[in-house]
Amino acid sequence: MSRFFSHKFDALTPYVPGEQPGDKQQLVKLNTNENPFPPSPKALLYAREHTRSPELYSDPEGVELRRALGFLCGVRPEEIVLANGSDEVLNFAFMAFCDADHPAVFPDVTYGFYPVFCQLSGIPYREIPLKADFSIDPEDYCRARGTVFIANPNAPTGMLLPVEAIEGILASDPDRVVVVDEAYIDFGGVSCIPLIKKYPNLLVTRTFSKSRSMAGARLGFAVGCEALIGDLNTLRYSTNPYNVNSLTLALGLGTVLEESYTQRNCAEIIRVRELTAERLKALGFRLTDSKANFLFARSDRISGGELYRKLKERGVLVRHFDKPRIDDYNRITIGTEDQMDALVEAIKAILEERT
Amino acid sequence: MSRFFSHKFDALTPYVPGEQPGDKQQLVKLNTNENPFPPSPKALLYAREHTRSPELYSDPEGVELRRALGFLCGVRPEEIVLANGSDEVLNFAFMAFCDADHPAVFPDVTYGFYPVFCQLSGIPYREIPLKADFSIDPEDYCRARGTVFIANPNAPTGMLLPVEAIEGILASDPDRVVVVDEAYIDFGGVSCIPLIKKYPNLLVTRTFSKSRSMAGARLGFAVGCEALIGDLNTLRYSTNPYNVNSLTLALGLGTVLEESYTQRNCAEIIRVRELTAERLKALGFRLTDSKANFLFARSDRISGGELYRKLKERGVLVRHFDKPRIDDYNRITIGTEDQMDALVEAIKAILEERT
Repeated sequence: MSRFFSHKFDALTPYVPGEQPGDKQQLVKLNTNENPFPPSPKALLYAREHTRSPELYSDPEGVELRRALGFLCGVRPEEIVLANGSDEVLNFAFMAFCDADHPAVFPDVTYGFYPVFCQLSGIPYREIPLKADFSIDPEDYCRARGTVFIANPNAPTGMLLPVEAIEGILASDPDRVVVVDEAYIDFGGVSCIPLIKKYPNLLVTRTFSKSRSMAGARLGFAVGCEALIGDLNTLRYSTNPYNVNSLTLALGLGTVLEESYTQRNCAEIIRVRELTAERLKALGFRLTDSKANFLFARSDRISGGELYRKLKERGVLVRHFDKPRIDDYNRITIGTEDQMDALVEAIKAILEERT
Repeated sequence: MSRFFSHKFDALTPYVPGEQPGDKQQLVKLNTNENPFPPSPKALLYAREHTRSPELYSDPEGVELRRALGFLCGVRPEEIVLANGSDEVLNFAFMAFCDADHPAVFPDVTYGFYPVFCQLSGIPYREIPLKADFSIDPEDYCRARGTVFIANPNAPTGMLLPVEAIEGILASDPDRVVVVDEAYIDFGGVSCIPLIKKYPNLLVTRTFSKSRSMAGARLGFAVGCEALIGDLNTLRYSTNPYNVNSLTLALGLGTVLEESYTQRNCAEIIRVRELTAERLKALGFRLTDSKANFLFARSDRISGGELYRKLKERGVLVRHFDKPRIDDYNRITIGTEDQMDALVEAIKAILEERT
């Protein structure tokens, strides 16, 4: 820290993303919930042929992509804002809808960036403990005062709230915003997006990083009523109007145009998830009921930290959070079936070493 | 604005970027200081061959690109931070180095985003009037208290401060940060980057949008001592660690690897700038001494606003700022020689219509 850094950030602890080692080829990388499949060849070809001249600014309105996304999601383009990954639009949502009078409220175990966004903007926040089984009690959020942030499915548990539970929270207090972070919704959940027509206090955030194989291209979006989207656009035009680059706009559109490819990949990831869950259970692991592209698993035979380290020694990267309540667990991204075979074999070998 | 939008943004007026019409092919677009030349074929080929798999997150450290940029700029990679365009890193600089005790200070006529960044973060700011000839008096900034932001060359005037003048401001008060925004430095200016070795209170911001033909790909960076860069990284990791996508990282590297192409384009733009300036002077225009990729011009024969509108009717887009002191002027991006021919012919026709 320099002596010039504003004291307003004294309490700021940045987010720590999963390791991104340089030599990925050598590793079975199951630590940052990336999609094991590349974007479809047709989407890549579309991007190559339709990327606007890089010397000209990208379309700050992303008109074409919002039109296609609107069609896909059953909303109007005016109900969508695009972002440089969903982290950017989540940050805008914390900025826009939280302040000293409107604290943020979210589970104690959830996406680790939420408290960072609060610290960054000096927003008070309250973490509501998940129940002992890691489930969210919707009643907690109906009673809570403040702007609600719920990842659905939640991370790193993968556990899903039904749409009816979200609707209950929305209806319980129409005077506060509820943000539903649907980064992982395509792996078995039902989206809340249709509810934006009924609830002007609902904002849904989505990402192309997981189901659409575009983590490296950076594309996220939010869906809500036109007034909420307008607020986010006010912040976007006050930070970086050209926030999404033209290469990514084109690849995003190519991806939306081949929705069946995304759906096939999601189905395959779900199949491999269930298969891997069974194999881990057979090894004595306990797992949450994940509807995301990862598993959240613990074993009585080895601590979470030790399993993480021993897997890494064997070239398998998973994510371990050194955090109360969840430090017994590891979050394991669903890769290809071959990658999951390698994971299971490595776990077997590690457990055998210990006996 | 929704009823949920935080009142802390009541005074926020977003930045208004130059028009980005959908049908650019029909227009001579000289309004947003884009480069008329595309990235080099070799850079585009490099990007195509070396873009990391889009399904994997981009390198949050941008190691390869920072290494190449460090070599180009004569600094260490640790003295560089990459951003999603220089707007992003400028916003981080306002956040990091300004607060109630450290107001921002910048010219009254400069890049219009500076006051927006201040409003966004609730930072007090003071605008120091340029002299009557639009030049910056360095003494004003030596005396001023607060964090200094100087665009060099300045926008929209294009006028350049010599490095010695910047050094005088840096040395006048080592206890405050001076940010030099060198978006247009490659068109005839001398960079302050070497001064970062001597002045730990210097931050220089740069962009790939102008000289490097990458406005649509979104890439900026800042150079400063390791401690200042560390502060900006703290903010980057608290908003969007993967702020630069992998397609852009690869294209940026390809561009840096072919520096001679950039230099040739800059030389051509400078040549066309001087040629166009002479032709406008011959038509009676008065111009600032621009060292940027644009001209800033006024005529006694037609108001700035009228010239802007009449040029637009003829398919030539330039930028007019409806702002005190400069509303007589238009900012005209330097395009190809053919585009500037079209501009001059259109101006001639407009002036003739009036006589």
